[in-house]
Amino acid sequence: MTAPPLLLTPGPLTTAEATRQAMARDWGSRDPAFIALTAELRERLLAVANGAGTHACVPLQGSGTFVVEAALGTLLKPTDHLLVLVNGAYGERMLKICERIGRTAKALRFDEDQPVDPIALAELLTHSPEITHVAVVHCETTTGIRNPLESVAAVCAKAGRALIVDAMSSFAILPIDLATLPAQAILASSNKGIEGAPGLGFALFERSALQAAAGNSPSLALDLHDQWKGLEANGQWRFTPPVQVVAATVEALRALEREGGQPGRLARYAANLDVLVEGLIAAGYDLFLDRAVQAPVIATFVQPRAWSVRFETFYDRLAQAGFVIYPGKLTRAQTFRIGCIGQVFPDDMRRLVKAVEAIAAPGRAAA
Amino acid sequence: MTAPPLLLTPGPLTTAEATRQAMARDWGSRDPAFIALTAELRERLLAVANGAGTHACVPLQGSGTFVVEAALGTLLKPTDHLLVLVNGAYGERMLKICERIGRTAKALRFDEDQPVDPIALAELLTHSPEITHVAVVHCETTTGIRNPLESVAAVCAKAGRALIVDAMSSFAILPIDLATLPAQAILASSNKGIEGAPGLGFALFERSALQAAAGNSPSLALDLHDQWKGLEANGQWRFTPPVQVVAATVEALRALEREGGQPGRLARYAANLDVLVEGLIAAGYDLFLDRAVQAPVIATFVQPRAWSVRFETFYDRLAQAGFVIYPGKLTRAQTFRIGCIGQVFPDDMRRLVKAVEAIAAPGRAAA
Repeated sequence: MTAPPLLLTPGPLTTAEATRQAMARDWGSRDPAFIALTAELRERLLAVANGAGTHACVPLQGSGTFVVEAALGTLLKPTDHLLVLVNGAYGERMLKICERIGRTAKALRFDEDQPVDPIALAELLTHSPEITHVAVVHCETTTGIRNPLESVAAVCAKAGRALIVDAMSSFAILPIDLATLPAQAILASSNKGIEGAPGLGFALFERSALQAAAGNSPSLALDLHDQWKGLEANGQWRFTPPVQVVAATVEALRALEREGGQPGRLARYAANLDVLVEGLIAAGYDLFLDRAVQAPVIATFVQPRAWSVRFETFYDRLAQAGFVIYPGKLTRAQTFRIGCIGQVFPDDMRRLVKAVEAIAAPGRAAA
Repeated sequence: MTAPPLLLTPGPLTTAEATRQAMARDWGSRDPAFIALTAELRERLLAVANGAGTHACVPLQGSGTFVVEAALGTLLKPTDHLLVLVNGAYGERMLKICERIGRTAKALRFDEDQPVDPIALAELLTHSPEITHVAVVHCETTTGIRNPLESVAAVCAKAGRALIVDAMSSFAILPIDLATLPAQAILASSNKGIEGAPGLGFALFERSALQAAAGNSPSLALDLHDQWKGLEANGQWRFTPPVQVVAATVEALRALEREGGQPGRLARYAANLDVLVEGLIAAGYDLFLDRAVQAPVIATFVQPRAWSVRFETFYDRLAQAGFVIYPGKLTRAQTFRIGCIGQVFPDDMRRLVKAVEAIAAPGRAAA
């Protein structure tokens, strides 16, 4: 078997050898050794966002969407109203979730290439007293845009509304400091900035909000209040946890600390993005977003009109060259996406740029 | 680090080296290589229950409880009525799930040491035309009892009610032949009889029932109709799958085939159970259940009155000797449980019996 390609996607990602090797043992899920591992997981996740003083970490089996649905169902009462700031697919998904689980939600929409606007939010909240909660996607991987979390949080705090943050693609990459950021919930998963294995989401909840959330959830499996009570009672998960995924994620969190925590990781990903964007722009591609709002996570590039290669061919040839990229997710422009997160380094990005140039530089006919 | 202990629990279990090693690589979740792996997973799971002609396999991220809740939410309409045959905690859990997700359910309860009774079921159905679905737990790991699935299915078929089977602890161990067994849904998970890694559940649904289930689910993440449509459309999971868990489970399914499929696995587990039960009975312990209804999965033993050791001490000393066992789950008797599934062989059971004898033979004072 040849080496698997480098994954330049929004996740699952290329992980470190030590992270994968941490999956090579079995654990009894109710044994003291695994209880200790779960405690380390929860402590380390809180520490990444400096939340130990205010928040509690509740991990959940499944993907990121599972923890988003679980958190909305756990925090929102049937009488609450959620406002979702939408500039991409993951904001839209929160609306779909609320429709399914029977919670009232409406959208404040922005163009996909524009960050959500805290001033528009403040104006809407002024004449919308029924809104109890606001949700925002920190980094929308639909485009790769970074939303202004701190300003949104300040507006919500001033207006006395609770903030729920989908930090799936930003956690451990962009700074989130819960000692100063007023956020009721931060939601993320194991397999993005943390560089763990997929199969695990988690919520960092304000403790007071969690304590008030008993009985809210319209689900047993996704009730994060019950999940928290179980963990606090005896350190155990209510239902079978993905033990190897937990072990890999703890190992990845130890590696994150060695890399200098979130600031260290951000520095590497930002360097990756610089090489990627500068290289592809020099090769004749356009970055979809303004550089100023582009997060160092995943970048969307516009397929040039003169491009003489179909996306599928481009994808296959890059995969043969050792790079798995991602299709675009926009309706109004033909695009593709390339991630710069995971165990990926600037030299990998240089090799990628060369591979793109060799396969399909704009205006050059594909072989 | 010393070798991890043998896990004699209802799961997660001790897995094969090759299964764990299958987790040592990364996969792009939307890449053709992983799409092929997912297809192999679904085909092999169907084949274990001989369901290719009638059923479709829908895998789901999370634990077994996630797929039970997902299946109930997907199959039951708000106007449906579910009857749950209850003789243990997993039957009770289905009732709790229905209460949470807003579906009507009631229980037909039996003593924990008695199999559910198909005759009582037939009588109840005769004067309960409102019941549309019946749910049964094939093997209740609360005690380790085997319920009479074939007779229950025959009663349901004759009465024209749909049958939902929680086969969590029996799948790939006890025979389930969907070519002859009338069951609308078989639910199980990756980390029991299959001996895969935890983090994945699955449902085998009658195709006609699945097609009729669009829009039923009160959840987005747990909607197995949508999950199925997504898989059928492009072979991809809707939301990030636990790629390493899928890879491990496929590897475990290949090993299951090499062991002779379900009959081969049953033979080994039955041999494990024989050694365990005969050994502990000879050492003075009582099996909680009648031997005739004891499934070859996990056995409940009664703590002798004359036992001079606390369960916690017993557990710790067995763990030091290399065996992780399980506490009892009964209210009316002090018990402990020992599993005989996973990569465990009769010689392991002989070693375990000796360890139990050395630590706490009934009537002998613990050191």
